[in-house]
Amino acid sequence: MKIAIFPGSFDPFTIGHYSVVTRALSFVDEVVIAIGVNDAKKTLFPLDKRIEIINKTFVHEPRIRVESYDSLTVDFAKEINATIILRGIRSIADFEYEKTVADANRRLSGIDTILLFTEPQHSFISSTVVRDILRYDKDVKCFLPPNVSIDDLKI
Amino acid sequence: MKIAIFPGSFDPFTIGHYSVVTRALSFVDEVVIAIGVNDAKKTLFPLDKRIEIINKTFVHEPRIRVESYDSLTVDFAKEINATIILRGIRSIADFEYEKTVADANRRLSGIDTILLFTEPQHSFISSTVVRDILRYDKDVKCFLPPNVSIDDLKI
Amino acid sequence: MKIAIFPGSFDPFTIGHYSVVTRALSFVDEVVIAIGVNDAKKTLFPLDKRIEIINKTFVHEPRIRVESYDSLTVDFAKEINATIILRGIRSIADFEYEKTVADANRRLSGIDTILLFTEPQHSFISSTVVRDILRYDKDVKCFLPPNVSIDDLKI
Amino acid sequence: MKIAIFPGSFDPFTIGHYSVVTRALSFVDEVVIAIGVNDAKKTLFPLDKRIEIINKTFVHEPRIRVESYDSLTVDFAKEINATIILRGIRSIADFEYEKTVADANRRLSGIDTILLFTEPQHSFISSTVVRDILRYDKDVKCFLPPNVSIDDLKI
Amino acid sequence: MKIAIFPGSFDPFTIGHYSVVTRALSFVDEVVIAIGVNDAKKTLFPLDKRIEIINKTFVHEPRIRVESYDSLTVDFAKEINATIILRGIRSIADFEYEKTVADANRRLSGIDTILLFTEPQHSFISSTVVRDILRYDKDVKCFLPPNVSIDDLKI
Amino acid sequence: MKIAIFPGSFDPFTIGHYSVVTRALSFVDEVVIAIGVNDAKKTLFPLDKRIEIINKTFVHEPRIRVESYDSLTVDFAKEINATIILRGIRSIADFEYEKTVADANRRLSGIDTILLFTEPQHSFISSTVVRDILRYDKDVKCFLPPNVSIDDLKI
Repeated sequence: MKIAIFPGSFDPFTIGHYSVVTRALSFVDEVVIAIGVNDAKKTLFPLDKRIEIINKTFVHEPRIRVESYDSLTVDFAKEINATIILRGIRSIADFEYEKTVADANRRLSGIDTILLFTEPQHSFISSTVVRDILRYDKDVKCFLPPNVSIDDLKI
Repeated sequence: MKIAIFPGSFDPFTIGHYSVVTRALSFVDEVVIAIGVNDAKKTLFPLDKRIEIINKTFVHEPRIRVESYDSLTVDFAKEINATIILRGIRSIADFEYEKTVADANRRLSGIDTILLFTEPQHSFISSTVVRDILRYDKDVKCFLPPNVSIDDLKI
Repeated sequence: MKIAIFPGSFDPFTIGHYSVVTRALSFVDEVVIAIGVNDAKKTLFPLDKRIEIINKTFVHEPRIRVESYDSLTVDFAKEINATIILRGIRSIADFEYEKTVADANRRLSGIDTILLFTEPQHSFISSTVVRDILRYDKDVKCFLPPNVSIDDLKI
Repeated sequence: MKIAIFPGSFDPFTIGHYSVVTRALSFVDEVVIAIGVNDAKKTLFPLDKRIEIINKTFVHEPRIRVESYDSLTVDFAKEINATIILRGIRSIADFEYEKTVADANRRLSGIDTILLFTEPQHSFISSTVVRDILRYDKDVKCFLPPNVSIDDLKI
Repeated sequence: MKIAIFPGSFDPFTIGHYSVVTRALSFVDEVVIAIGVNDAKKTLFPLDKRIEIINKTFVHEPRIRVESYDSLTVDFAKEINATIILRGIRSIADFEYEKTVADANRRLSGIDTILLFTEPQHSFISSTVVRDILRYDKDVKCFLPPNVSIDDLKI
Repeated sequence: MKIAIFPGSFDPFTIGHYSVVTRALSFVDEVVIAIGVNDAKKTLFPLDKRIEIINKTFVHEPRIRVESYDSLTVDFAKEINATIILRGIRSIADFEYEKTVADANRRLSGIDTILLFTEPQHSFISSTVVRDILRYDKDVKCFLPPNVSIDDLKI
C-alpha cells in the first residue's frame, strides 16, 4: 500500500489543496494530510478548526485523513509509513522553495517528493489570499473546497 | 497496475533521466519510456541507437521498457494504458515549459503529470550538454547511466 | 483618442490574444493588431489567413482592426499614431522577453509598453501549443476565439 | 474619464513610483495613489508623512492625487470610480506577486490590473532599499522623486 | 593586494559558505568574512559563537579572517580596504536579491560585486535549513564546514 | 598573474560586454576575450569583423586581447593559462544557462566561473537586440562600446 504525506499548515485548507490531494488518489492508495505544528508560527485558525475543516472536506473519502505533528516532516512520514511526500506547485517561488526542502528531505531520509501542478484556475489561490480577504469580511466561498462553507470557517 | 509514461527525445538518455525513472518505481508499477518521433526535429542519435541505449540501461529491470510513438503524448499514453505522465524538472525554465504542457495535456485528456526534482548533483546534466561535449570527443561517461559506456554511444 | 498597438505574429490568433485585446478596450479607444512580417521567420498560416481569422474574430468590434508591417514595431506604431504598445504576459519567460523589448522600444522611441496578465484559464495557451496539436489533427476549438471554428483555420 | 488606482504602502514614495505614475498619465486621465492602511504592518514613516511627500511630489500635477484606505483594494477602487489598477514591475518576484493579486482582484470584482515596467535605471530602487540606507544616515536623494529632498523625509 | 569582503549573517556558517570563500582564494588575495550586526534581526547563534565557528573553520588559512560590523556594507568595505564584494548564488530568488543589492552598492560607492555559483551538491543548504533541522535535534554535520562538529554549535 | 577568459560569440560586441570586461580589470590582471567558432552557428558578422571591432574597442588597453577558438571552452582556457571564466548576467534566463555551463565546466576541468551583473542601464542590451535593430537600418550607436561607430560595423 502506497501512502503519501501531504504536509502543510493549511491555515485554512483551500480548493487548491483539495484539488492536489484528490488528484493524487489516482496514483497513491492513501494520503495523510499532515498539519505541521510549530509554536513559532502564528496561525489565524487554531489547530482544531483546521483539522475540522479538512475532516469535513473528506468525510466521504476514506483514503484521505488528517494528522498533526511536531517533528521533522521526514520523521513523521516514517512514523505513518508514508513513502512519498506530496506537494503542489503553482509558481517559481514555490518551485525553488520545494526544491530546497525536497533535496534536504531526500538527503536526511531517502524519502522522495512528488509534485503536482496546481490547476490553472486555482493558480492564484493560497491560504494567505483567503486570510487577506477574510480580514475585510468578504466572501471566500469560491476559494474553499466544494463542501466547506463560510460558516465552517467561523472560529 | 499503475503505468506511467516518461516521454522525451532522449538524444541521448542521461544519468539524469535514469535517476528520475528509477526513483519513480517507488510509486508506480511500470514506467514506459516513450521516445517521441517528430520528423521536424533533428537528433544526433538515430532512433534505433536511442532505443538500444535505454534497453541496455534497464536490461535487468523488467518494470521499465522503451517505446517510440508519433502522435500526441496523451493519445499514446491511452494506447499503452498509462494513467500518469512522469517528468523530471531541474530548473525554472523546465518548470514553465512542463506546466504549459501538463495543463494542455490535462485539458485534452484528463491525464495528469507528476514531477520529480532532478537530484542536485545531476542538475546541470542534459542531453544537450552531452551532445555539446561529444562534439569535441571528450569523455561524457559521468553523464551517462551506470552501465552505459562511451562505446555504447558509437553510431 | 488613445490608440494601442498589439504586435505579434499570431500564427494563429488564440483565445489568449482575444482576451488581452478585448480587455484593453476598457482603457484605450482603439487597438491595432499588428502582424509583424519577417521573411526570416516561417509561419504555419500564411499572412492572409492570419488576417482573415482576426477580421472574423472582431467583425462586430469597430474599435479593433488588424494590419501587417515590416519595420521596427516602434516605427510602425508612430505611422498609425499608436502611443502605447500592448502586450499580454503569462510567464516568467514572457516577463523577461517583454522587459527587454519594452526597454529597447522606450529607448529608441519614447513609446511605452503596458502589460496585461493572461487570465489563469488561458495561461497555457499559445500559438505554439495550437500548432503542435493541429499537427495531429486534434480539436483545438477551445484554444480559439469564441467565433472562430476549426474550419476557419483550414488553409 | 479613466481613473486608475495605484495602491501601495509607499514607505516612502520613491523615484521608481514617481516614474510609473507619471508615465501612466499617457493613457489614463487621472491616477489616485492609494495608501493601504493596515494596522498589522509597521511602517517607518507615519501615514501623514507619506501623504505629505506624495502631495509635494505632485503639487503641480492636478491629475494625480493621494488617498488612504482600509479595505480591500478593489472595494476602494469602486468607491473612487477607478476602473483600472496600476502597478509597476521590476522583477520576477514582483511578477509572481502581482499576478496572484491581479487574478484575485479580477475574480473578486472584474477590475483588471495593468502593469508598467520599471525603467532600467530604477530597477534596484525600492522603499525597502531607501529605508535600509536611511538607517545609517546616508544620502538617499537619488532614490527620491525630483522635487523631494532629504529634509522632506524628516519625521 | 586584492581584498574581498564576504558579508552575511552566517547564522551559522555552512559548508556552502565555506565552499564559496575557499574558491574565491583562487582570484583574490584575502577574504574578510564580515558579519553584519543588525539589532532588528534576531539570530539563533550569538555573534561570539558565529565568530568562533568561522575562526575554527579557517584556523589554518591565514588569508581568510572574520570581522563584525554595524554600518552599510560598502562603508565597512572601504574601512578594511576591500575593493570587491563577494557573494554566492544558489537560486533565482538569490539572483534577484543580489542584483538589487549589488546595483545599490555600486551606485552608492562604486564597489562592484562578484558572484560564484554554489556547487550543485550544496544548492539546498542554507543557514535557515540548518536551523530548521537543529530545532528537532537532528544531525547537521553534513551541512557544516569540514572541521566543524555538532558540538562546536553548542551555545 | 591572473588571466580570465571571457567566452562568447560577440555578434557583435556590445556596450554591455564592454562594461563587464572593463570592470573585471579591477580583480584580474588580464582578460582574454575568446570568440567561440562553431560551424553550426550562423553569425551576422564574420569572425574577422568581430575581432576587428574588439581590437578597436581596446586599442589603448593592453590588458585585454581577443582570440578565437574551436574547442571546449575549458580546454582553450587551459591553453591560454586562464584560471577563471568570466561571464556577465542580466536575467533569470542568463542565470540558469550560466549555472548549467559553469557546473559542467567545473566538473570537466576544475575551472570556476565568476559572474558580474550587467549594469542596470545596459540590462536590455544584447547582440540579438543590436542585430534586430540593424535589420531596419536604425542607429545602434548607443548599444556599442564608446569608441565604436556604426561605420565600424559595416561589413
